[in-house]
Amino acid sequence: MNGNAHDIPGYTYGASAVASATLDDLRRLRISAGFTEQDEHYLRMAGAVLEDQVEKIVNHWRANIIAGIPHLARHSRSLDGSPLPDYLARSNRRFQQWILDTCLRPYDQDWLNYQQEIAIRHTSLKKNQTDNVVSTPYVPYSDIVAFVAVLNETIKPYLQAKEHQESDVIPMHKAWCKSMHIQMALWARTYMEVESTDMEW
Amino acid sequence: MNGNAHDIPGYTYGASAVASATLDDLRRLRISAGFTEQDEHYLRMAGAVLEDQVEKIVNHWRANIIAGIPHLARHSRSLDGSPLPDYLARSNRRFQQWILDTCLRPYDQDWLNYQQEIAIRHTSLKKNQTDNVVSTPYVPYSDIVAFVAVLNETIKPYLQAKEHQESDVIPMHKAWCKSMHIQMALWARTYMEVESTDMEW
Repeated sequence: MNGNAHDIPGYTYGASAVASATLDDLRRLRISAGFTEQDEHYLRMAGAVLEDQVEKIVNHWRANIIAGIPHLARHSRSLDGSPLPDYLARSNRRFQQWILDTCLRPYDQDWLNYQQEIAIRHTSLKKNQTDNVVSTPYVPYSDIVAFVAVLNETIKPYLQAKEHQESDVIPMHKAWCKSMHIQMALWARTYMEVESTDMEW
Repeated sequence: MNGNAHDIPGYTYGASAVASATLDDLRRLRISAGFTEQDEHYLRMAGAVLEDQVEKIVNHWRANIIAGIPHLARHSRSLDGSPLPDYLARSNRRFQQWILDTCLRPYDQDWLNYQQEIAIRHTSLKKNQTDNVVSTPYVPYSDIVAFVAVLNETIKPYLQAKEHQESDVIPMHKAWCKSMHIQMALWARTYMEVESTDMEW
């Protein structure tokens, strides 16, 4: 599933990280979100469906949606608004891989650690560093949470693209959405820790 | 739509509040979530569909789901785990009204202020105070975000209960989900402000 993942700039999945959420936290959040083994099953199915579409999906999100929203687009640009094509390309590769990780990775400590790495890279603790660019200092947490609504809505046609029955598409989509809630909850932890110095809401 | 709302204990909608998110913040979040006038239209429709079902819905959430999840149920109980029926009844009335407010209120400064009041009442700044009870000091933000996945999934049959076509149910549900993302984003602001003293993740 991740045959080319080692080629992705800054994709440090599996590397040890500073203390992130624990497996106990994850168990709690899975229960709170109603995320079950059936959801895991349907996420695997979703992963198989999405695997060869991730480039198209991320391009859809970037070119058709984010590029048209200045307050989101600026996070991938330099501070004067000029494009940073290499930064965009690198983060797009990671964005694509994130779709696959959401669907195909076991939700274990490595997954939790990389969730934290994702969040940290959207805060002032580490944004821009991995790709050595000068851009906005952080992506507000509130915009991430709001934009996940768009991810959830726009992923659905891609889940339908391989002629699965609605009886499979609907639970694949539900499982995806539940995972998003767990991930938003995990990312919040990182943002709240940053709050000791500043408010990146 | 809110004929009986003035009878709900602690329902202070429209009262002035400490500085909450601004209308500019809301405009930004609406754009980030892809929330449009069409979504407002379908939320009004959802409000009409849900209006006489809110007691049943909240009872479903409380009795069928939350009651079975100890780490969530405890927030409506005393610290030794014994029931607080009056607290539960009062917060259930507000929970019901929140469904209506989500669907039927204009998203203006009063709505933003009461969003903040909702969030504050889940943090240690104000939990238990409105109803003068001794219970858990706060509801972790992460559990709220995770549990919204359950709200989103379980609201759907109630949207289907009045024999609307799927061509109406689907956009009603999408509009509901987008509103949830905007609300989770707003509640995060309050939790992040609390973080200066403690971590209520």
